[in-house]
Amino acid sequence: MADEKTTVRFGVLGCAHISIKLCKAIVRAPNTTLQAIGSRSLEKATAFIAQNGLPEVVRVYGSYEAVLEDDQVDAVYIPLPTALHVTWAIRTAERGKHILLEKPVAMNTAELDRILEACEGNGVQFMDGTMWVHHPRTAKMKEALSDEQRFGQLKWIHSCLTYNPGPEFLKHSIRAKPDLDGLGALGDTGWYCIRAILWAMNYQLPKSVLAFPGAILNEEGVIISCGSSLHWEDGRSATFHCSFLSYVTFDVTALGTKGSLRLHDFTLPFEENLGYGTFHESSELDFGKIEPGRWCPKPNEHVVESEVPQEVLMVKEFADLVGKVKFCGEKPEKEWSVVSRKTQIVLDAVKESIQRNYQHVEIKL
Amino acid sequence: MADEKTTVRFGVLGCAHISIKLCKAIVRAPNTTLQAIGSRSLEKATAFIAQNGLPEVVRVYGSYEAVLEDDQVDAVYIPLPTALHVTWAIRTAERGKHILLEKPVAMNTAELDRILEACEGNGVQFMDGTMWVHHPRTAKMKEALSDEQRFGQLKWIHSCLTYNPGPEFLKHSIRAKPDLDGLGALGDTGWYCIRAILWAMNYQLPKSVLAFPGAILNEEGVIISCGSSLHWEDGRSATFHCSFLSYVTFDVTALGTKGSLRLHDFTLPFEENLGYGTFHESSELDFGKIEPGRWCPKPNEHVVESEVPQEVLMVKEFADLVGKVKFCGEKPEKEWSVVSRKTQIVLDAVKESIQRNYQHVEIKL
Repeated sequence: MADEKTTVRFGVLGCAHISIKLCKAIVRAPNTTLQAIGSRSLEKATAFIAQNGLPEVVRVYGSYEAVLEDDQVDAVYIPLPTALHVTWAIRTAERGKHILLEKPVAMNTAELDRILEACEGNGVQFMDGTMWVHHPRTAKMKEALSDEQRFGQLKWIHSCLTYNPGPEFLKHSIRAKPDLDGLGALGDTGWYCIRAILWAMNYQLPKSVLAFPGAILNEEGVIISCGSSLHWEDGRSATFHCSFLSYVTFDVTALGTKGSLRLHDFTLPFEENLGYGTFHESSELDFGKIEPGRWCPKPNEHVVESEVPQEVLMVKEFADLVGKVKFCGEKPEKEWSVVSRKTQIVLDAVKESIQRNYQHVEIKL
Repeated sequence: MADEKTTVRFGVLGCAHISIKLCKAIVRAPNTTLQAIGSRSLEKATAFIAQNGLPEVVRVYGSYEAVLEDDQVDAVYIPLPTALHVTWAIRTAERGKHILLEKPVAMNTAELDRILEACEGNGVQFMDGTMWVHHPRTAKMKEALSDEQRFGQLKWIHSCLTYNPGPEFLKHSIRAKPDLDGLGALGDTGWYCIRAILWAMNYQLPKSVLAFPGAILNEEGVIISCGSSLHWEDGRSATFHCSFLSYVTFDVTALGTKGSLRLHDFTLPFEENLGYGTFHESSELDFGKIEPGRWCPKPNEHVVESEVPQEVLMVKEFADLVGKVKFCGEKPEKEWSVVSRKTQIVLDAVKESIQRNYQHVEIKL
């Protein structure tokens, strides 16, 4: 039984597919309980609890508003379509409830700023739902990238996130509708690529972006495939490709002057259910111990164990921060707002470059 | 002993480091002999033969011209700096000798066209020195990319070729000198990336390219790091990154609607000396047989054996074509000229995009 004095009670808005994973994570995390779930349909919310084996004590509501009105809800997970974020996140903040907001966090930075202002004004914690950064593998990879002896200076990073949900999805899914998830593949998959690039660059914003010509839009004008190059003042650069048209691919490649780091499952370790994740790291230092017959040392496979899935770690970390506000009277931690905002700024710049027929877009700090 | 009636006798111009590999390949290939090597210094040529354990019967000359004047030389391997190619390749063709020309083949397509016209006018075979396409792994990978059931339609390809030879190289190497290998990293490493992309696209030229902003040039204006996106009429696209600034990386990733293909050693298999090469291939068809605990099928490792190194296969293939001209009176095969020319056309377009401050460059067919 969770300790009531340190437990963060979650409400969830909507029965999106991703809600299943998050609700289970909230149940599993040591410092959270699932208090309530709201859907536009009470029946749907009730069925959602039953079908996914969630605790019967979870309160079900026939509206999102009712979740926000529940005094027993401390924090709200919002997996609604992107276009609805600004409305519901602000309402959530205005009720003094902390926000775990699914990515992409907003349709644009202006909307996000309204959300963040509401969080600031109401003293609530904000975090976006990017799970992979919470896996311990991510911290280990950062150590590898920071190892000047083995990796040297970061020069270039490439990320690619694609999957192919098929033609029906492209026509009917909310993820390809301009008035719902209107950022399409850029919001759904490009978000992760941009975050990975910024993460590798220690969250330093690029000075400019230039989208790749030939972005593909669906009939309603939503991006289903695109990419961009990103450029930093000091000569470092990055590229990414994101799409709803190719086989599932989750690649990050980071090149340093002395080494490289690679993985093909950065948003979700292939071995997540086996309790670990891996990445590959190479360094010129290993040329001294090349295996017979090879001209280049084999990359080192690093295995990073994790007893719990990354979404549980995310929920726990968020609830730790909420707990500091709720139980210790501290101010909300702003680091996660900053990271979300930088991701959104780059995403906006890429979209602008596409809309302006692939012109350079400067990023103003 | 090679059969004189079907043996192609090679002359080599210059004692470049790459000449060692090629001379050994010429000695090893079943249908070639190493007839002569010329250097601007007779001592250097003599020492080259001795130091590299090459046959003592190989004739050594104190000039390139002398190799071309040798009536016992059927074909010439030209590893000279790029800027010298147009002069020496044309002279070689004019002596009726077949040409194996190191990459990049010329400083630009106009120069290459002069070379190819000389080959055409003198009835000599042309091939460039891109070795990896001759490894049997390459044919197996093409089979995988052509498998519509497993791979679907090709949508996107990314290639990256980098190495970090250090600051002295960037100042003093001929590969970074405007009047020698004036194409720098774009010619030395980008050539391979462009070739890989065209190879995957069945040598269909893109309609346009757009270089990534932030190409890095050395003090003399030679490219030491750059990249580009490439675009086809039907929505397929590609990107590449090439540089002299990052740890050794030889990546190709090809994404199809149903599958993917990846390798990290495309220009030279890690296991070349062990007699094989590998690549990784994934397909949605494998979702039916996922290993316990994984959410995504593990990529299939394909192992392709090769009894002889790829440079020997290249020399043999070239000599086979020369043999058809020399012994059977056939006309030279033009396929390799076409492939070289397309690679150079794209390379020129990327260079032009960089020079024009990262503007779109249309490729005219």
